[in-house]
Amino acid sequence: MRNIKLILEYDGTRYRGWQKQPHQDVRTVQGELDSALAKLLSEPVETIAAGRTDAGVHAYGQVVNFKTSSDMALSRISYSLNAILPDDIAVKSAEEVSAGFDARHDPLWREYHYYILNRSYRSVFLDRFVLHEGRSLDIGKIDEAVRRLQGRHDFTSFCTVPRGIASAVDNPVRKVLEASCRHASDIVWAGEPVEGLITVKIRAHAFLHNMVRIVVGTAVEVGLGRRNPEDFTRILEAGDRSQAGMTAPAKGLTLVKVQY
Amino acid sequence: MRNIKLILEYDGTRYRGWQKQPHQDVRTVQGELDSALAKLLSEPVETIAAGRTDAGVHAYGQVVNFKTSSDMALSRISYSLNAILPDDIAVKSAEEVSAGFDARHDPLWREYHYYILNRSYRSVFLDRFVLHEGRSLDIGKIDEAVRRLQGRHDFTSFCTVPRGIASAVDNPVRKVLEASCRHASDIVWAGEPVEGLITVKIRAHAFLHNMVRIVVGTAVEVGLGRRNPEDFTRILEAGDRSQAGMTAPAKGLTLVKVQY
Repeated sequence: MRNIKLILEYDGTRYRGWQKQPHQDVRTVQGELDSALAKLLSEPVETIAAGRTDAGVHAYGQVVNFKTSSDMALSRISYSLNAILPDDIAVKSAEEVSAGFDARHDPLWREYHYYILNRSYRSVFLDRFVLHEGRSLDIGKIDEAVRRLQGRHDFTSFCTVPRGIASAVDNPVRKVLEASCRHASDIVWAGEPVEGLITVKIRAHAFLHNMVRIVVGTAVEVGLGRRNPEDFTRILEAGDRSQAGMTAPAKGLTLVKVQY
Repeated sequence: MRNIKLILEYDGTRYRGWQKQPHQDVRTVQGELDSALAKLLSEPVETIAAGRTDAGVHAYGQVVNFKTSSDMALSRISYSLNAILPDDIAVKSAEEVSAGFDARHDPLWREYHYYILNRSYRSVFLDRFVLHEGRSLDIGKIDEAVRRLQGRHDFTSFCTVPRGIASAVDNPVRKVLEASCRHASDIVWAGEPVEGLITVKIRAHAFLHNMVRIVVGTAVEVGLGRRNPEDFTRILEAGDRSQAGMTAPAKGLTLVKVQY
């Protein structure tokens, strides 16, 4: 069996997240991809992803792998997949990797960007990929707050326990390699940095469920002056979800890069 | 009467262009804007635009003006308009200008960018704003071709005479201040220049109907090696639309800036 690694880009707006659902009528990215691969390779295929993104979350550099007995050329696989897949999912590259490569377990780190458009008027070009916040945010304070997450911590306070699971997460400790907030030129449009764009960047070995969105939801409260940056340390130590702020909307979140 | 200048951004995908149509059920940007203004100011309003963009063409810096007897504060006008207007139209700024200011007649120049995504796979983020061309284009040759348009020329060959108008355009002479093609960092996404993005930039005092799109359609043929850059001079001199190439799709075109 060959082991194939794909890098994907998708606009998560119309999807109920990455993970395939038992009901055929629930649109998921994995559902679309697995059925496109099955059609192309004439065999059942099950892809494994680096990030099981939630409903509405986007990806710029999602990495997946799958096993196949097909000997189809890589260039034909990526070209044909792009022809079969819906317009809001694209295959950026395909390569053959060693049998042991596992997109989900092997990453050194994953990097997510959360985009906040902090200005009075929306962006018609970026609307689906940013949270629009008209009230003025203090970027320096947000940066000071999220930097407190760097290092190895118990992230119970910044995590949603999925419904139907009685107990807490097995191991809520994660190592955050970088957490920052910048008034960024991370997106440039028509040759100009986007006015008012703020990027919250978080790079970690792995993430808990809704972790980035709860961090951002809480950080926005810091940016509005309703909480202090120091609260982030206190919230971490409390180990209690109710101490953190609301979960920021999915649309602002993009899985940007996965490093192996 | 006050004279108010607005700068607008819109995603032209869902619109039959700028100009209001007699039929109420034809969606146009001016139709949406004029009716939002009439609702807000409780009087009929007719806006005048710098660029009467065609169906599917976008704007990043469209400039319009209108006269009103209302004394509503500018900040309230822009805020309320953004609340009334559909999500794919946004007001970026509002200012009061002298009575004589005319958005359509006063520009020193208008700048359009045409975006071509020259790579094998589409961009799910930019799909609505670029022409996707999978075959490899020679950017240097396109640049050489379009630079031949700089200066004052008769652009009859690069112009569509609107249907229902018997004669040719009154005056087909236009002065192009800049025409270039670059492998550009004009759009950056997630901190990285978009792979394969090509920007054709044209700045002129004024444009003829479909001028940029016919220039780009013809330039793509140069990029594919089907025509030579020198052909652009010959086509200009011919004064014959049939000598130029096809009209490139509207979706790749954005009115970026208008200078007064």
